[in-house]
Amino acid sequence: MTTTLIQGGLIVTSQGEAHGDLLVADGRIALVGGGLDEAADTVIHAEGCYVLPGAVDPHTHLEMPFGGTTTIDDFTSGTVAAACGGTTTIVDFCLQEPGQALGEALVRWREKAHRCPPAVDVGFHLGIVDLDLDGALDELARLPQEGVPSLKLFMAYKGALMVDDETMVRAMRVAGANGGLAMVHAENGGAIAVLIEEALGRGETEPRYHATTRPPATEAEATGRAIELAALVDCPLYVVHVSCEEALAEVDAGRAAGHQVWAETCPQYLFTTAEDLARPGFEGGKYVFTPPPRTPADQEALWGALAGGRLDAVTSDHCPFRWADQKTLGEDDFSKIPNGGPGIEERLALLHHFGVGAGRFSLPRLVELVSTGPARMFGLHPRKGTIAPGADADLVVFDPARRHTISAATHHSRVDYSLYEGFEVVGAVRDVLLRGNPIVRDGEPVEGPPGGELLSRAPFGSSLPIRDGGAA
Amino acid sequence: MTTTLIQGGLIVTSQGEAHGDLLVADGRIALVGGGLDEAADTVIHAEGCYVLPGAVDPHTHLEMPFGGTTTIDDFTSGTVAAACGGTTTIVDFCLQEPGQALGEALVRWREKAHRCPPAVDVGFHLGIVDLDLDGALDELARLPQEGVPSLKLFMAYKGALMVDDETMVRAMRVAGANGGLAMVHAENGGAIAVLIEEALGRGETEPRYHATTRPPATEAEATGRAIELAALVDCPLYVVHVSCEEALAEVDAGRAAGHQVWAETCPQYLFTTAEDLARPGFEGGKYVFTPPPRTPADQEALWGALAGGRLDAVTSDHCPFRWADQKTLGEDDFSKIPNGGPGIEERLALLHHFGVGAGRFSLPRLVELVSTGPARMFGLHPRKGTIAPGADADLVVFDPARRHTISAATHHSRVDYSLYEGFEVVGAVRDVLLRGNPIVRDGEPVEGPPGGELLSRAPFGSSLPIRDGGAA
Amino acid sequence: MTTTLIQGGLIVTSQGEAHGDLLVADGRIALVGGGLDEAADTVIHAEGCYVLPGAVDPHTHLEMPFGGTTTIDDFTSGTVAAACGGTTTIVDFCLQEPGQALGEALVRWREKAHRCPPAVDVGFHLGIVDLDLDGALDELARLPQEGVPSLKLFMAYKGALMVDDETMVRAMRVAGANGGLAMVHAENGGAIAVLIEEALGRGETEPRYHATTRPPATEAEATGRAIELAALVDCPLYVVHVSCEEALAEVDAGRAAGHQVWAETCPQYLFTTAEDLARPGFEGGKYVFTPPPRTPADQEALWGALAGGRLDAVTSDHCPFRWADQKTLGEDDFSKIPNGGPGIEERLALLHHFGVGAGRFSLPRLVELVSTGPARMFGLHPRKGTIAPGADADLVVFDPARRHTISAATHHSRVDYSLYEGFEVVGAVRDVLLRGNPIVRDGEPVEGPPGGELLSRAPFGSSLPIRDGGAA
Amino acid sequence: MTTTLIQGGLIVTSQGEAHGDLLVADGRIALVGGGLDEAADTVIHAEGCYVLPGAVDPHTHLEMPFGGTTTIDDFTSGTVAAACGGTTTIVDFCLQEPGQALGEALVRWREKAHRCPPAVDVGFHLGIVDLDLDGALDELARLPQEGVPSLKLFMAYKGALMVDDETMVRAMRVAGANGGLAMVHAENGGAIAVLIEEALGRGETEPRYHATTRPPATEAEATGRAIELAALVDCPLYVVHVSCEEALAEVDAGRAAGHQVWAETCPQYLFTTAEDLARPGFEGGKYVFTPPPRTPADQEALWGALAGGRLDAVTSDHCPFRWADQKTLGEDDFSKIPNGGPGIEERLALLHHFGVGAGRFSLPRLVELVSTGPARMFGLHPRKGTIAPGADADLVVFDPARRHTISAATHHSRVDYSLYEGFEVVGAVRDVLLRGNPIVRDGEPVEGPPGGELLSRAPFGSSLPIRDGGAA
Repeated sequence: MTTTLIQGGLIVTSQGEAHGDLLVADGRIALVGGGLDEAADTVIHAEGCYVLPGAVDPHTHLEMPFGGTTTIDDFTSGTVAAACGGTTTIVDFCLQEPGQALGEALVRWREKAHRCPPAVDVGFHLGIVDLDLDGALDELARLPQEGVPSLKLFMAYKGALMVDDETMVRAMRVAGANGGLAMVHAENGGAIAVLIEEALGRGETEPRYHATTRPPATEAEATGRAIELAALVDCPLYVVHVSCEEALAEVDAGRAAGHQVWAETCPQYLFTTAEDLARPGFEGGKYVFTPPPRTPADQEALWGALAGGRLDAVTSDHCPFRWADQKTLGEDDFSKIPNGGPGIEERLALLHHFGVGAGRFSLPRLVELVSTGPARMFGLHPRKGTIAPGADADLVVFDPARRHTISAATHHSRVDYSLYEGFEVVGAVRDVLLRGNPIVRDGEPVEGPPGGELLSRAPFGSSLPIRDGGAA
Repeated sequence: MTTTLIQGGLIVTSQGEAHGDLLVADGRIALVGGGLDEAADTVIHAEGCYVLPGAVDPHTHLEMPFGGTTTIDDFTSGTVAAACGGTTTIVDFCLQEPGQALGEALVRWREKAHRCPPAVDVGFHLGIVDLDLDGALDELARLPQEGVPSLKLFMAYKGALMVDDETMVRAMRVAGANGGLAMVHAENGGAIAVLIEEALGRGETEPRYHATTRPPATEAEATGRAIELAALVDCPLYVVHVSCEEALAEVDAGRAAGHQVWAETCPQYLFTTAEDLARPGFEGGKYVFTPPPRTPADQEALWGALAGGRLDAVTSDHCPFRWADQKTLGEDDFSKIPNGGPGIEERLALLHHFGVGAGRFSLPRLVELVSTGPARMFGLHPRKGTIAPGADADLVVFDPARRHTISAATHHSRVDYSLYEGFEVVGAVRDVLLRGNPIVRDGEPVEGPPGGELLSRAPFGSSLPIRDGGAA
Repeated sequence: MTTTLIQGGLIVTSQGEAHGDLLVADGRIALVGGGLDEAADTVIHAEGCYVLPGAVDPHTHLEMPFGGTTTIDDFTSGTVAAACGGTTTIVDFCLQEPGQALGEALVRWREKAHRCPPAVDVGFHLGIVDLDLDGALDELARLPQEGVPSLKLFMAYKGALMVDDETMVRAMRVAGANGGLAMVHAENGGAIAVLIEEALGRGETEPRYHATTRPPATEAEATGRAIELAALVDCPLYVVHVSCEEALAEVDAGRAAGHQVWAETCPQYLFTTAEDLARPGFEGGKYVFTPPPRTPADQEALWGALAGGRLDAVTSDHCPFRWADQKTLGEDDFSKIPNGGPGIEERLALLHHFGVGAGRFSLPRLVELVSTGPARMFGLHPRKGTIAPGADADLVVFDPARRHTISAATHHSRVDYSLYEGFEVVGAVRDVLLRGNPIVRDGEPVEGPPGGELLSRAPFGSSLPIRDGGAA
Repeated sequence: MTTTLIQGGLIVTSQGEAHGDLLVADGRIALVGGGLDEAADTVIHAEGCYVLPGAVDPHTHLEMPFGGTTTIDDFTSGTVAAACGGTTTIVDFCLQEPGQALGEALVRWREKAHRCPPAVDVGFHLGIVDLDLDGALDELARLPQEGVPSLKLFMAYKGALMVDDETMVRAMRVAGANGGLAMVHAENGGAIAVLIEEALGRGETEPRYHATTRPPATEAEATGRAIELAALVDCPLYVVHVSCEEALAEVDAGRAAGHQVWAETCPQYLFTTAEDLARPGFEGGKYVFTPPPRTPADQEALWGALAGGRLDAVTSDHCPFRWADQKTLGEDDFSKIPNGGPGIEERLALLHHFGVGAGRFSLPRLVELVSTGPARMFGLHPRKGTIAPGADADLVVFDPARRHTISAATHHSRVDYSLYEGFEVVGAVRDVLLRGNPIVRDGEPVEGPPGGELLSRAPFGSSLPIRDGGAA
């Protein structure tokens, strides 16, 4: 039984922070205390650093076909980047194809992960596209017990991923009754289709029209609708990538009405605006993700909601397309640009610098937003997302004084640009352990075969028991 | 030039009331004043009575195919009933069939009115079902200039009349830009389809499940959505048959946000509740209209909104199916009951007795709700809906002391039941003039050929000029 | 019996507009019709002009002591200015002094009007300052029956006019139960006192700090509170001079909750902003009125609310202090500047040009906002505020083509500046009749003794009967 | 250095639960882990039990003069009762008297605690009554640095504790700028004074009129006002004893607007209703506390808000008056009944049984509501409110299977009745440690001198460092 002692760091959980030591044994946390001097195989000196639970990123799109191409990171390259950014668990979106059995979609996605083994632990959500299949509702009902408690519904992308209200209600009913959680991409795809058609008809083909054809009202309407429909059939709801004040107000209202609703935002909505879409020479194409970037006022509203407890998580929505040869598919027509942007590695450092460093929220709140909150919401807690005896020893030693300049030249994703190119941050990931094993050391991946596992998650509202042989 | 002098009544407009006399000449109002003693061909003594502008009913369904059958009143029988209730103008819903040119639908509806000539003046709204036709949007753009400024969109009746959000936005954009007004039947048809399927699956087949499968949230969600979509494309919006507090709150919110939104309710929502659907022996089937009747609390909310200016009109939604052989189509399955109820004749007397008589609102407010408001909203004012020089002499002499018991035995519609059977009201229509011609005398239709005309209405927000040769 | 025939104008009421003629007899409207050719003592040719009901201004402060000085217009000078602007009735604020019986305050105010006879008709509201007097509540209860149905409560001006919540509730209870209407100046005087003290402590003494020490939240809070307290004791409420979006939102919310609440704004909030307070050389002092001018966004919100029916009236809040020797009392300390600005003459022309002319609302809506609405709200309708047989012949012939430049050099108030100096408007008052008598001709006052009367108004919700000997 | 080992319990924090062992040394938690077998002076076997952080009760009124009498529990009797209920820290309300320096009030309150030494740790809030004293604002500014970071403002009790808005704003400004937190008792005292006077005038003297004269609107209005005033001057706000849906909605709205606002409710609002006030024979007098008990619908709303994160704490508002000789002061006039009820001992057991046991929320949520949340809010965390190395070893061993019947016959307060008389709960406190020392064993107080300390708390938003000599 290998043991590791992490000494002298500031241990931070979503509950608070305290100087102390950690003893890791058999991949799990064995002891938390002060002045531990147990013998250990390895000792990590963490003086001057934070010791955080590994971050959980429940919103990634690896090796995903979309818009006639495929995201450029596979499960290996994407998760190596994740690990370097302090993320030790991702939950990726497996997408059903029309006519495909749900289980079949999961089989295919697991194959991708077997072909390109992940460097961090991996779970799957299931994106529902088609419920008009024999047995689809029965399959859906079983999923939470089979380790896939969260499903995704797209209210946007008409003609592709979008489902109608009937399908939403049907899926939500089954999910709500069987330990599932519904996630929604909330934009009114029908309205947007008209706005895009009108814009193109006026010759508005450049990237900046991506924003004008998806105004905040289209997001707010869909957000409110999703909340009402979920409430109608008693299904807990999680709204992904909230981008603007108007949508946030709908989340607030739903919550005030007593509905079970949670929501996330993503770094791109905190750091880019619609102005970036107008960058010259098709550079704006880099910023075509959905919902589009908004205004500085929306950014402030989102920061305030993160601090004030009105948003529950920050995830990456990592959906990487190369600028050189993928984004350019839409060089003459913004509606053909594959929608999505990269960010699986930068989340923790950005939020640390601009959130904690700028005094917007505390370190424990940071941990809540990137680790504990997502772990709890997606059936991973308390095995993941916390530092407590018995929990997986997924740990990040974060050096708050280390300076780092974000750049595509140094990041670990395969994508050829960064939304945060040149951003200078103070504070960076130093070491990362996955179930006790070092996977990042001094900011770079540790050599060797990727050791991530595929996770079976707990139904919504349930705890994921710690692994057998644990301390308790 | 025929002249009529109406003497000694209390002249009531939406602005106020005053004792006075009216001189009618050439079908129009010539003079309004006190102590008129002009010579006239006819003198009507109105002492002790109210003289009101003829009521306008912008929500009727005459000879309309629906649910495998056809409403039982044609343009003659329906409008005779309307006239007896003090209504001198109706605007009926012409419905497009899938694949049918819009103009063709209007041609067919006009044919119905030619075949069975109406006793009151008649305009048409156009119910849009299908915009995927060559030229449909161009046709839609021309309609307001061609006398049909209002279109109807159904968010309910999935698989039949329901349109998706894309069609709604497309239609609203064209309407808003061309002097049109969008009307919506706001219920989430997709969600309701699931609830009905679930209910039938549980063996819930009786009429009372019509209400449980259309809960207030399904109406509120659609109401809010319609308002947001209309605002998105700058289209004025009119929400038909608001039935519950939750939907009313959405109208309030839309208005507070500065959107152009108006709304009506109907007598059935003021006088019946979901309890009526549970009447024994399939009598509940009589109360199957959509949205369904709600609760006493909703009734109170609607009355309050009528008094407080938060609802703009009361219309009949007259959609008559015989109980004996039409409603019974759904004796074993509530979802097969043709949706709709009668009421074209009772509106004015019910609102007078229970609204004005009960102290809920004033006489001028009554006139606003049943006449002036609808006339203004639907491009008929100031030719209709008011008492002023030049306006059409559509006039009601209403006797506030006359007692009347509502009954299917005495009403003038062909339908075989009344939602208000046995209701006793004080106050009833005595005489009605249509453009100066007597069409109801002492409560009963005047013999002779029906004299109603088909009206070409003004674009939204415009006035309908008074007829040529007028006073001004 | 003198008669006047007004021929060929466009007669505009709040209900609509139509070309027609009016016969005035015995000070009242006798006939409304087309092509009238009755013999008359006087004929006014109104071709190309609008004929409007005389405007009603329910918010004036004539010869009022305030802040150590007295408003510069007395009942003669102020009402001559009003008449020139098309206003034929004002309701002025009579203010109780501490310890003074309510009736005594009214006696004093009537004395002022006797000393300086008014050119238009005049009613009084009563501003309540002190209810701790024997018999005060009984007096208050009788006021609505004695012609004074509206009372005013100040939530601002701590140490001067401000009353506490207990006094408000007590007054509202009595008013609500006895046909009274409560009016509130809604600003949190306590909070403002602290903000002023803090500002002065920082050496912020210039006029622009008048705005920073009265932020929108202080108005919104008081507005919401007034609505809740009035609702608690069933008293109808009218909120004066709404200046900002936040307060407007409170009015919306109150209305949506079913409370009886109405609200006005004033031209100064539509045409000036906080920037004006920063004009150089103490010119900013001209713009010190309360609430202070706000932002362009607030202006837009107010215009939208006027168009959309969320505000019910536009009044002047004419409260004139000379710049030269009254405003300068606060040259070294903004809190000593007498609060108030002039505007009794400009209201109709400004709203016509920038409201109707700019397409923001219609002519009938203009009439509603400046005449019919206030008349109805303050117990003057249908004697005032409309054009109908029997109503007082208070009429304005308004020439929509006449150009006018607003200036202190030409206005009729005694004040030495105009908030709208140099504004060019198209459309101006030509002639004004008060109860049939010409008081303004071709834009200038008619010579002769002022003929205004003191009015006894009707209780809230009641009509003010037309005068004896009337047509009906 | 004394050590204690707690073995085999389910360790519950606000973050989660896990089986494990705790080593306590020197009054603080030394180790948290699994399978600890360190030698220890004492071993507590906690198999089958929960090990919780000691509860924190930030709302008590011990030995407080009020309404002409004094609460019946002193610091000894009250805290013994607290300890028996699992509470190891209280924060009591020290009240300034008019004219008294703030520091002097604190001196007096500390004297009470010295005279009757407490059994648990004790901090003080300061209730501000009068700021019109030389130096009062300076004193107020220093308090957060001197261990008293929270002040209380009463918006009710006109003529006694109530402060006006100016005082509130002044106090909030100073608090917000200096690390203070404002707490408000939110009821409109002025409005209530009128309603009470009216009720007594009608002869309504019985306890049930305590509720009718304090309707929800009076609480909601004050809640909204407090939030707006605090936001105006950037002061964090904590609303005590929220009792009804309407007030809750104001808290929701404030939070949605981005303001720093938190709120608590108390067990009496979850378990009693206005019906209890009508119990026969003056028994209703027992239920006279403020705000009054409300309706079952309000109870449900509060439970939902506790579960959904919209309320942040449950406190006792223990304010004990004997029924026999104190409550009876108001036997003939409800307004003379001393306002307040007992409950310092029952909080944890009630919330465990009816909250966790009934499935309304989880064990970690329970810990958040009664311990971690209050500790964090009131400057006690992470020394109090959590189980982590270095924290004070304030621990509760709670037996979830132990049955207990609540009764005044067995509770430890001196008061002669219980609001929960006869309630049967499953789950009770077994053992309690205060800084490692046993103070309750098997449900009863341990003999010996009380060992509570007076606490100096941290400014708002700051952590309270763990004690010297700690593990980290």
